[in-house]
Amino acid sequence: MKIQIINPNTCQGMTEAIGRSAEAVSLSDSQIIACSPQHGPRSIECALDETIAAAAVLDEIAKGREQGVDAHIIACFGDPALDAAREIASAPVIGVAEAAFKLASIVSHRFGIVTTLARTLPAAEHLLHRYGYQHLCSGARAAEIPVLDLEELQQDTFEQLKNECLAAIQQDGADSIVLGCAGMSELAQELSSCLNVPVIDGVSAAVKLAESLHQLKLSTSKRGQYAAPIQKQFIGRYQQWSR
Amino acid sequence: MKIQIINPNTCQGMTEAIGRSAEAVSLSDSQIIACSPQHGPRSIECALDETIAAAAVLDEIAKGREQGVDAHIIACFGDPALDAAREIASAPVIGVAEAAFKLASIVSHRFGIVTTLARTLPAAEHLLHRYGYQHLCSGARAAEIPVLDLEELQQDTFEQLKNECLAAIQQDGADSIVLGCAGMSELAQELSSCLNVPVIDGVSAAVKLAESLHQLKLSTSKRGQYAAPIQKQFIGRYQQWSR
Amino acid sequence: MKIQIINPNTCQGMTEAIGRSAEAVSLSDSQIIACSPQHGPRSIECALDETIAAAAVLDEIAKGREQGVDAHIIACFGDPALDAAREIASAPVIGVAEAAFKLASIVSHRFGIVTTLARTLPAAEHLLHRYGYQHLCSGARAAEIPVLDLEELQQDTFEQLKNECLAAIQQDGADSIVLGCAGMSELAQELSSCLNVPVIDGVSAAVKLAESLHQLKLSTSKRGQYAAPIQKQFIGRYQQWSR
Amino acid sequence: MKIQIINPNTCQGMTEAIGRSAEAVSLSDSQIIACSPQHGPRSIECALDETIAAAAVLDEIAKGREQGVDAHIIACFGDPALDAAREIASAPVIGVAEAAFKLASIVSHRFGIVTTLARTLPAAEHLLHRYGYQHLCSGARAAEIPVLDLEELQQDTFEQLKNECLAAIQQDGADSIVLGCAGMSELAQELSSCLNVPVIDGVSAAVKLAESLHQLKLSTSKRGQYAAPIQKQFIGRYQQWSR
Amino acid sequence: MKIQIINPNTCQGMTEAIGRSAEAVSLSDSQIIACSPQHGPRSIECALDETIAAAAVLDEIAKGREQGVDAHIIACFGDPALDAAREIASAPVIGVAEAAFKLASIVSHRFGIVTTLARTLPAAEHLLHRYGYQHLCSGARAAEIPVLDLEELQQDTFEQLKNECLAAIQQDGADSIVLGCAGMSELAQELSSCLNVPVIDGVSAAVKLAESLHQLKLSTSKRGQYAAPIQKQFIGRYQQWSR
Amino acid sequence: MKIQIINPNTCQGMTEAIGRSAEAVSLSDSQIIACSPQHGPRSIECALDETIAAAAVLDEIAKGREQGVDAHIIACFGDPALDAAREIASAPVIGVAEAAFKLASIVSHRFGIVTTLARTLPAAEHLLHRYGYQHLCSGARAAEIPVLDLEELQQDTFEQLKNECLAAIQQDGADSIVLGCAGMSELAQELSSCLNVPVIDGVSAAVKLAESLHQLKLSTSKRGQYAAPIQKQFIGRYQQWSR
Repeated sequence: MKIQIINPNTCQGMTEAIGRSAEAVSLSDSQIIACSPQHGPRSIECALDETIAAAAVLDEIAKGREQGVDAHIIACFGDPALDAAREIASAPVIGVAEAAFKLASIVSHRFGIVTTLARTLPAAEHLLHRYGYQHLCSGARAAEIPVLDLEELQQDTFEQLKNECLAAIQQDGADSIVLGCAGMSELAQELSSCLNVPVIDGVSAAVKLAESLHQLKLSTSKRGQYAAPIQKQFIGRYQQWSR
Repeated sequence: MKIQIINPNTCQGMTEAIGRSAEAVSLSDSQIIACSPQHGPRSIECALDETIAAAAVLDEIAKGREQGVDAHIIACFGDPALDAAREIASAPVIGVAEAAFKLASIVSHRFGIVTTLARTLPAAEHLLHRYGYQHLCSGARAAEIPVLDLEELQQDTFEQLKNECLAAIQQDGADSIVLGCAGMSELAQELSSCLNVPVIDGVSAAVKLAESLHQLKLSTSKRGQYAAPIQKQFIGRYQQWSR
Repeated sequence: MKIQIINPNTCQGMTEAIGRSAEAVSLSDSQIIACSPQHGPRSIECALDETIAAAAVLDEIAKGREQGVDAHIIACFGDPALDAAREIASAPVIGVAEAAFKLASIVSHRFGIVTTLARTLPAAEHLLHRYGYQHLCSGARAAEIPVLDLEELQQDTFEQLKNECLAAIQQDGADSIVLGCAGMSELAQELSSCLNVPVIDGVSAAVKLAESLHQLKLSTSKRGQYAAPIQKQFIGRYQQWSR
Repeated sequence: MKIQIINPNTCQGMTEAIGRSAEAVSLSDSQIIACSPQHGPRSIECALDETIAAAAVLDEIAKGREQGVDAHIIACFGDPALDAAREIASAPVIGVAEAAFKLASIVSHRFGIVTTLARTLPAAEHLLHRYGYQHLCSGARAAEIPVLDLEELQQDTFEQLKNECLAAIQQDGADSIVLGCAGMSELAQELSSCLNVPVIDGVSAAVKLAESLHQLKLSTSKRGQYAAPIQKQFIGRYQQWSR
Repeated sequence: MKIQIINPNTCQGMTEAIGRSAEAVSLSDSQIIACSPQHGPRSIECALDETIAAAAVLDEIAKGREQGVDAHIIACFGDPALDAAREIASAPVIGVAEAAFKLASIVSHRFGIVTTLARTLPAAEHLLHRYGYQHLCSGARAAEIPVLDLEELQQDTFEQLKNECLAAIQQDGADSIVLGCAGMSELAQELSSCLNVPVIDGVSAAVKLAESLHQLKLSTSKRGQYAAPIQKQFIGRYQQWSR
Repeated sequence: MKIQIINPNTCQGMTEAIGRSAEAVSLSDSQIIACSPQHGPRSIECALDETIAAAAVLDEIAKGREQGVDAHIIACFGDPALDAAREIASAPVIGVAEAAFKLASIVSHRFGIVTTLARTLPAAEHLLHRYGYQHLCSGARAAEIPVLDLEELQQDTFEQLKNECLAAIQQDGADSIVLGCAGMSELAQELSSCLNVPVIDGVSAAVKLAESLHQLKLSTSKRGQYAAPIQKQFIGRYQQWSR
């Protein structure tokens, strides 16, 4: 199967890292197509970034559809543009936050989220509510690491992240950790070894869910809210959406 | 004061109608600046439309800021881009759904929402939850009128809308009606006369809240989530957001 | 328009202060009528005080109705007698807590409440729930200042209040402050200057909402729960309510 | 023990009926003191009635305290003045709605409420929420019987009530019925025979809870919200509350 | 009346202590039958213990039914097997946690739970939610006392328990204490004297509720979820359940 | 990998059918071990059945652990004994209801549940709440088909099931269907063809989640609630649990 994994920001290094994480866990007959929009912010750390990136992600979904991919993954912890993507795609669309919550709640009673900047915490809280996982989360914490610092991670940044995970475990009562940024994807295994609890990376989780749905021949319902968008005119830089 | 009222879709007729509604209720020393994005969908009726329109609305917020407006109103019932707009604006930003819920809950025990297409109901439900008004709403109903049909409203479309309002009152127990589309703005008074309950139009409500905040010298807190966006590089068609 | 603002306690000094706050923000053609009941407690700080004051407030609503006022404001943070007042009034009735929550949630992501005595916190929590603002409030705190000490505020009492506001901001994550007592009305501006976040006073907020509703020709729905009370006999000191 | 049972309205016939219901289920060494306020409405059917009755109930609580009663019961389904009564009483105070919900949820998975007028349904919904029983209630229904019609119940009124109970069982899925008015107290047994499900009358339930608490030597905590009211001056018709 | 009180664990000493607590508060014409299963764990401190004990409790319910008891009490704070017991019993079935919550919320605004091991806290949280008392509970705390240490309580263990109760009162704002283990039953009175707030023991509370229901002739509704179980074949060690 | 799939009832035919469903979707290197307890009810349709089956399931979990399986699946829609199983297992444990909800909410905005008997609906509602999916479910419906009738399904029983699914879609607004009984597993594909929406079978879903977790090297956190059970003595027919 072909799995398109979209990094919603425009940082090429992060797209590659996410692609590597996806490759590392995918089945041998899964082809990973990692990409990112040609327009938008280099990182997603506030509502402006997310609102802009959401519009840009949809171009990539459309390209993936043309390429005939079997699943689309939106690899930013805010799961931007998820509903719109499900409208325009025929294959399933999976957000990494959603994927992480779903697996974390199987392997633990309460999971903690550790993310980049405090500024992104409301987005995490919004998703917990949207997906119904508030009562299964022991809390969300920010390690105060800017997203792009994750690209070339220094030892002290790793320590900072690890310490925040420890606080989630010891102070908040987390039994597992959900990494709150797709850019942390490659750190899951090392953190889990240090912390001795499951550490769930949404990118890997989403890849496995994409394969699962494909094998079960399940795709987005085209009845109800995720039916194809209503045809109409779009103008200006969005005229490609006219149908 | 200067009030910028943004119609998030690109239908010029609707922008003008919204402007007229705003003018009709504004104080004599309020100047209404009605505008709409140069990019995006002609109407907003599904998640694709809303995701694209959200990005486009932000350009208008930035223009309004340059023009020194004292308040921004986002005049689409989905309140698209509200959080991002509050980050980039220095003046207050008000969504019309939010404004309508706030006034409706003063003049009635339970309000009903009557909107255009069933497709938009999940957006209304999402906002009820976001703002905390679920328990004060007797339900949301769609009259199955496409947004653009509101521009040149025929008598039978008006009857359809009125009948859905009656159903909200008689079957759901609504004591007042919130109109679920900025394009219905000019119908509020006539509907109220027919129905004999308060009919709340978000555009008018938002104008009064904008004036209220201005007179109280209250503007968006720049502490916490609505602080100015983090500076970073944007590329492609969004490079204007680089700071 | 005529706006009746009712101080539910019987402390004349507080009635005057509330009247001044209302005057200070009202439009030039609004006439403020500040009053308080002839019966009841000198301050409202526990359930006994509030239950008694609620019954007494209704006499004032009836008087206001006779005077043909265009809006009634109940200026005690517990919003006592709000439902009953809406039944007997023909003009809109606004509670100051309700008004403060509505404006605070436009200008901030999370507001904190700072009130007088810890004893009144359950009332604040009840109202947050009633109006649906629990998730938008970062917490309620008591400065442990008796209500009547607000009348002739000493510098150290002001410091106490300011410090509690700072705790709400720094420890609870409040982005704005809602003042939890109508008696604090005149302190909003000075506190806002000190704290550098919006400080919302319910009295001023309610005045603007009253003017807004009046200009929009919106009044309480007389369908459903706020229909006129069922006629019946009242005896003893409440016989004036017989109809 | 002495149990004071207060009918919050001023209809003497209902006070007597409530007293009879209480007597019928009390232990032989319990003394029932049925009373009602000297001031207030003849029946409680809307917010005005309830707000006035609440203030009047407190006089009776004070009298009961002077008489040294061991428990106070507030016998109106809105549980008016409950918090204030707990502040001023030293013996426990029990509301009949609260009592009915507590027993109903032991003997059934879901209970339905059948009350007098639709006008009183919001009060029932408020109490379900306040006490946390919303999810255990299959719904509240009004038989549209004015409270005072319960005094001299005609056969067809009884049929109306029974039919509404049947609707609660068959349409809403109720496994038991809570009677939503203290005036229905004497009908519980006959209804239960007809309906073949438990029918819970709050007056009887409250009497048993009062005896239970007394035998367990449990009384209202005087720490926290139910501590004695703060001493202060009351004026006018409420000056008896000055301390 | 005959009240069967079942200790779901197999520790005979605890069964006797629970029986003594029940005797101490029962009416003179109530006969207490304390028993425990012949199979299962010596104490209940984790999900394994509770799942096994639940199946074993049902044998005792069946025996109680054969003995013609008028009420069954399940005396473990997890209220194990409550739904199944209500299906097979004809008399009412009461859990001690449920009973404690019901009385605690009459005598206090907020109750705190103090239990044995932190491991059992999720069970307490589950019950608070199931019964709808989350918002009335100031929090649950574990004194880290293994259940069986309660049998022969040392002075320092009592101090540990008392200190945790004090923390619940002073730090969490509890106005009363619910004891989170049936094995703590005999300590309620001494703790209440030390703490000066009501201390509610579920065993005593359940006995009074059992008597209350019996006197009101209320028993489990046999309509809906608690109807007799569907007849079918059971094999192996559960064949006695075949009908 | 070895996947143990436990049918919690003692109907051998259903165990085999569940095994076939699991085989049909598993990867080629997954070995499915289908089993069922030696003790307990032939089907699970009420709380008695489920409480007994829960205890019996744990024996199978222990056997699976001895056999070194890499995942355990509990294949009854009530997810019986899930918490206890996670305590005693070292491999992950997955319930079929949990699995179905997780996949259904990716491929649809709202899913409907269609189950066997109305008697089992409260169990489904309980699980929706436990896992946080209430707001994503359009409702649960019973086709009134006894579980064992699913073994040799007649055409008219299939029609009954299909009609209930249609009602879920057309009346409740479901965009996909979750099958509410493991015994319906083999019908998913045929129903999906008829209904033209995704039909999610929990058995297949759980198999894919088991493989996903295994490939991600994620297993149950042994910190917190799912730590190994506390060692203690069990007596009688449960003495095998003594440690």
